Amino acid sequence: MWADLQGIGRDASSGGYRRYAWTGADADCRDWFREQAEARGLAHETDRNGNQWAWLGDPTAGDAVVTGSHLDSVPDGGAFDGPLGVVSSFAALDELRRRGVEFTRPLAITNFGDEEGARFGLACVGSRLTAGQLTKEQAYALRDADGVSLPEAMEAAGQDPETIGADPERLARIGAFVELHVEQGRALDVSGDPVGIASAIWPHGRWRFDFRGEANHAGTTRLADRRDPMLTYAETVLAARREAELAGALATFGKVSVEPNGVNAIPSLVRGWLDSRAADQATLDTVVAAIEQAAKDRAQRDGVDLAVVRESSTPVVEFGHALRDEIGRLLGGRAPLLGTGAGHDAGILSAAVPTAMLFVRNPTGVSHSPAEYAAEDDCVAGVLALADVLEGLACR
Amino acid sequence: MWADLQGIGRDASSGGYRRYAWTGADADCRDWFREQAEARGLAHETDRNGNQWAWLGDPTAGDAVVTGSHLDSVPDGGAFDGPLGVVSSFAALDELRRRGVEFTRPLAITNFGDEEGARFGLACVGSRLTAGQLTKEQAYALRDADGVSLPEAMEAAGQDPETIGADPERLARIGAFVELHVEQGRALDVSGDPVGIASAIWPHGRWRFDFRGEANHAGTTRLADRRDPMLTYAETVLAARREAELAGALATFGKVSVEPNGVNAIPSLVRGWLDSRAADQATLDTVVAAIEQAAKDRAQRDGVDLAVVRESSTPVVEFGHALRDEIGRLLGGRAPLLGTGAGHDAGILSAAVPTAMLFVRNPTGVSHSPAEYAAEDDCVAGVLALADVLEGLACR
Repeated sequence: MWADLQGIGRDASSGGYRRYAWTGADADCRDWFREQAEARGLAHETDRNGNQWAWLGDPTAGDAVVTGSHLDSVPDGGAFDGPLGVVSSFAALDELRRRGVEFTRPLAITNFGDEEGARFGLACVGSRLTAGQLTKEQAYALRDADGVSLPEAMEAAGQDPETIGADPERLARIGAFVELHVEQGRALDVSGDPVGIASAIWPHGRWRFDFRGEANHAGTTRLADRRDPMLTYAETVLAARREAELAGALATFGKVSVEPNGVNAIPSLVRGWLDSRAADQATLDTVVAAIEQAAKDRAQRDGVDLAVVRESSTPVVEFGHALRDEIGRLLGGRAPLLGTGAGHDAGILSAAVPTAMLFVRNPTGVSHSPAEYAAEDDCVAGVLALADVLEGLACR
Repeated sequence: MWADLQGIGRDASSGGYRRYAWTGADADCRDWFREQAEARGLAHETDRNGNQWAWLGDPTAGDAVVTGSHLDSVPDGGAFDGPLGVVSSFAALDELRRRGVEFTRPLAITNFGDEEGARFGLACVGSRLTAGQLTKEQAYALRDADGVSLPEAMEAAGQDPETIGADPERLARIGAFVELHVEQGRALDVSGDPVGIASAIWPHGRWRFDFRGEANHAGTTRLADRRDPMLTYAETVLAARREAELAGALATFGKVSVEPNGVNAIPSLVRGWLDSRAADQATLDTVVAAIEQAAKDRAQRDGVDLAVVRESSTPVVEFGHALRDEIGRLLGGRAPLLGTGAGHDAGILSAAVPTAMLFVRNPTGVSHSPAEYAAEDDCVAGVLALADVLEGLACR
């Protein structure tokens, strides 16, 4: 099962995955999901926001136990972020059938669309739409780097973009959602546990900084006559690190675009994207405000115009204690609680339905990179833990 | 004549030109050049390095007076950088015919190929090849951002790449080369002169800084665990400005590329290109060494690997005093001498043949941007000055 998925969307030079929403690689992943569902006699459907569902039992009966994750990737992502949760869901179902248990609630396995936001710049589009946290109008305004809009991309992939939007009926069917995910830090490696349970997702957001200067010849324009936005950008990158360090938060400029981006041209525009996260909202607000202030101060000195646009913002997610504690009991107290700075579809859904997450140990701590890793033994432990949880929730 | 050229390769959104070597826009410019030559009864030829020549008189007679410039552009370049020299050359010929002078030496008008280096990263490819300053092997190794090699691009444009390389026979035909160019600074604006004569081209070069870190998740990787090359890049950008300021030189990072360039991914690679220039070689060497040292120091702190590659280097060009002084006399002492930080085909050719440059006032001082400008009166003054020079050199 895992082997069939591993070749899809893999870049030969980097060894990383490039599975972007509504591309050919994404379609191949979706075909794989459908085949896995059909091979197990599950009823497959793609909802009107492009999320895939594989149902065991009556989808309309309500109080369903749902598990799954996503199959898309960041640019040059690793093999585990997303796919481990989907593969483990199918494997856990296989394990439960091996155990011969009887299901008392409907079970569904999901693949949420466009979780990473690598193509259109907004993460968790599929779950956000379903939960009503992203409107059809907002989704229609999303464009990729080539100027293709989200509805154009969906249409090209055979998905009707007309019907996207909040789907409360679907949410109302879900009694519990459990997402298994590879850990994106080293907490489990430090504690020596193969599997953990999420306590909370840090509040986080993305801000676009547009630094506008004046294009000019790098070989003939006196330093004093320049309005060079690259300088302002550079100062802001260093300020972000400094402010994050001071506050015990995270702040990263990982994406930049430059116009005209010529070796001998002072840029007219440098656009940098800030990703920032902190344990609580007040700290996050303080860090981002301090970075903005540093950018403004330097912009004035450089004769550069600065505009800051908040592209997304996700408040803190404290997973419901009832489900979290029940899962803790089902795992016999062997899985520690841990927080995470990464956003997930589970974080989006938690506003509407009881939601929990399991993490599988990643000894490198590396994420969003081909170096991301989980040992086979730990993957098996993850599948067995998920099977225990699903059995406890859906078979009693 | 000017109007026919103005529409070619213009980007509707930026208003700037995107005439890159061996593209469709370049082919259109080349067609325009051929039409101008044929309309004036000049013999047109494209040499084996892709430079265009329009001959009045016998090309093989020797001691020819050659004038011209280039038609390609930087990304979103202005209308004057390059084309003003070619258009003025044809206009100066028209003026000389109006004057009814007789030519005693062959005259050629040129369009040198790939002067800006916007596509393959190396400037003055056409003149470098001709002058033997770029070998066929080196040229074959050039690739554009899409991985297309220079010979592939030439072949696609109908130019045989097999025969490129040093062309001493062609150089031996040239008795003098005069390039007219829009000024890329404000010296003439300050001195109040429409036309000036080049004294020297500053030594300059391009260096590629490869900062290699480790791709990781921006939301889950502790600051202390990061190897973030964006930080090292940012520090180096600021160091470049600081060192240039201290030395009275120029240093610019105008181009950057990032992998994987995702908002929530710490980069694995940031590649920045340094353009640096100074009045003399020793100052240039000192500035670049200081920038490299600052980059190395920061790289160590960030856990980042640094490799610096010198992609091109052009020593100081002191234009020959004999031709320069003769041109000064022909212009009746009305054109001041000025140095420039910009590279030109004239700088390349000056190693092999007597070479001079005329500059036309650019009141904005802006270059490599749509805001680059020369007033119509000054353009006419440039044409008349070039006509005076060509008459003095080729008609006596």
